[in-house]
Amino acid sequence: MTAELFGVDNLPYGVFSTPGTEPRTGVAVGDGVLDLAAATGDPVHATGSLDAFLAQGPRAWDAVRAQLVRWVTAGAHPLVPRSDVTMHLPFTVADYVDFYSSRHHAENIGRMFRPGTPPLTPNWAHLPIGYHGRAGTVAVSGTAVVRPNGQRLDGSGPGAAPTFGPSRRLDIEAEVGFVVGVPSDRPVAVDAVADHVFGVCLVNDWSARDLQAWEYVPLGPFLGKSFLTSVSPWVVPLAALEAARVDPPARETAVLPYLDDAGLRWGLDLQLEVHLNGERVSSPPFAQMHWTPAQQLAHLTVNGATLRTGDLFASGTVSGPARDERGSLIELSWGGAEPITLADGSTRTFLEDGDTVTITATAPGTAGGRIGFGEVTGTVLPAR
Amino acid sequence: MTAELFGVDNLPYGVFSTPGTEPRTGVAVGDGVLDLAAATGDPVHATGSLDAFLAQGPRAWDAVRAQLVRWVTAGAHPLVPRSDVTMHLPFTVADYVDFYSSRHHAENIGRMFRPGTPPLTPNWAHLPIGYHGRAGTVAVSGTAVVRPNGQRLDGSGPGAAPTFGPSRRLDIEAEVGFVVGVPSDRPVAVDAVADHVFGVCLVNDWSARDLQAWEYVPLGPFLGKSFLTSVSPWVVPLAALEAARVDPPARETAVLPYLDDAGLRWGLDLQLEVHLNGERVSSPPFAQMHWTPAQQLAHLTVNGATLRTGDLFASGTVSGPARDERGSLIELSWGGAEPITLADGSTRTFLEDGDTVTITATAPGTAGGRIGFGEVTGTVLPAR
Repeated sequence: MTAELFGVDNLPYGVFSTPGTEPRTGVAVGDGVLDLAAATGDPVHATGSLDAFLAQGPRAWDAVRAQLVRWVTAGAHPLVPRSDVTMHLPFTVADYVDFYSSRHHAENIGRMFRPGTPPLTPNWAHLPIGYHGRAGTVAVSGTAVVRPNGQRLDGSGPGAAPTFGPSRRLDIEAEVGFVVGVPSDRPVAVDAVADHVFGVCLVNDWSARDLQAWEYVPLGPFLGKSFLTSVSPWVVPLAALEAARVDPPARETAVLPYLDDAGLRWGLDLQLEVHLNGERVSSPPFAQMHWTPAQQLAHLTVNGATLRTGDLFASGTVSGPARDERGSLIELSWGGAEPITLADGSTRTFLEDGDTVTITATAPGTAGGRIGFGEVTGTVLPAR
Repeated sequence: MTAELFGVDNLPYGVFSTPGTEPRTGVAVGDGVLDLAAATGDPVHATGSLDAFLAQGPRAWDAVRAQLVRWVTAGAHPLVPRSDVTMHLPFTVADYVDFYSSRHHAENIGRMFRPGTPPLTPNWAHLPIGYHGRAGTVAVSGTAVVRPNGQRLDGSGPGAAPTFGPSRRLDIEAEVGFVVGVPSDRPVAVDAVADHVFGVCLVNDWSARDLQAWEYVPLGPFLGKSFLTSVSPWVVPLAALEAARVDPPARETAVLPYLDDAGLRWGLDLQLEVHLNGERVSSPPFAQMHWTPAQQLAHLTVNGATLRTGDLFASGTVSGPARDERGSLIELSWGGAEPITLADGSTRTFLEDGDTVTITATAPGTAGGRIGFGEVTGTVLPAR
């Protein structure tokens, strides 16, 4: 996490503490943290969660950001060195939805999980496929990844029976998450995403592919995902992403009007990196995502589902067309058939105990350089 | 809701208010409500939610129940007439999980949704299939059911494209829900369900079958379910269900040890009734459920997923083997092909605007009679 990625055009929010102090809202500046509770004296920033600030909405967000720009430009407040702080889960996760919005990822998974059928299901290009994950097991970056136990199908064919034990196909999913600030009891139009979404974090949706493959028909992933989802501690506000907005890739299939995002430029040119034990193994390009967060939010609410402050929706695994742009090990190793070789000469198909995975991202900033998202990291511990 | 079903062997908990007073915890007694906040003076019962009481655990639950039995037997406290109270959502729903534990329901749905394949997927008898629903749209009985809009596939074949509009196949799912009181950061063994689950409510998991059929492959139901899930306002404590515990039906497939519930008798002899516009259309027998709540909870946590106070897990649609024991309209009308005829001569396949569905249940009580669960009801309003 390099200091130049946290300039005055970034200013992401998180919740931090130092030894002996209570968690409170801070803003990353260079290699320090501006204590927003102390600087403003506003109790909304002293609750140990961004929740109350998120609920205040765009006008309040803009006002605080404008004040921060003035303070940071003037060096008006001392910073706490980032190396001295402990970061906490920045908001209370209300509902967690995970989408499936990378065409390349969906095609890769389809080829592996459903060989002999078209890689994309017939609905894929008509709606952003998504499902609800477990909000209670969303945790902040650094939380240990205890290898999950569960049912795995070892054999195949009609008589095959599952066995129970530690997952043998523990994987990552490099994703981007969107944090809802302003609640809604009406559908959110595709052009209104910025009225409700506060900002963006990085997500690693840890996945046990063997558990998932056995359980997911017909009602979707469950225990293969619900043991842990990690999020980065810094939430980059949408206001910092103006220079990152791009047109999404061209799509062949016409969408229904409520998903029509022509001209909205809610593609986002984030460049992700996936590091395994310190070595970069993939560079997924978020700008390649088929469905945008604006479409995801419009879809999520079009049936009347209400939104709450703290709702988190994630993009799904970010995979580009190239092999070294794939955002999961199951894709990088093609289901385990093509192990990847690390710099130390070892190979990987899926994660081994002791492995550490760190996902980072940067994007163009409004000052001409780049801004950073920090990281989401986790180390695998043996099954209990 | 007849008074004799709320005797001293029942004593379900809810959150009520009367005009001009704040929501607080009450206990249903006969046709009245005992104001637990007033009777005990304990602020835990004055919060407007059962959450804090749920978190206290079995020893506290037992102590309050013992006191209530003494008070009710002695007529020690005046009751508020139930006709005068407004009921509220009794607890804060943390995560909501919906299972699929009726063999008859799963077979019926499999035959309709996946014709030409075996009705049960290969995993069905090995694990209690489940998925996460939307916690933020769980609402108390009486909440209006606004017909959801969404994508429906009108035609079929490779070229078929979806249209957008109000669901034409709005349905119910008559279910039983289990409310978690005591959190856990370790797997909950199959014999430990009563250490964590406080009690039982009725659930109607409203479903838009056309939205669901189009969206659910490969990641499961999403918008077809997320618009509303209704729960009954009274939570019947497990302590009131001792006489309802039965052996679950015999199963042909051996289960893995963590799911082995032999001798635990966590089948529950609840008799549900589904009423459409006041007329009983189905009587689903909960004692026929293949997977028990003890197995569901053991499965849900076996991968290390943590539990929180307020986690709600529901059984899935309760359907027995007979036609008039099916817990959804898609089963009662066999996908719309066999409409049911109501007493007024009208027919139904799926719900029409203005229809009211009410689900009730009773079970054997410990005093020799029966106890009631109240009802979960909702009326369909036109799409917005």
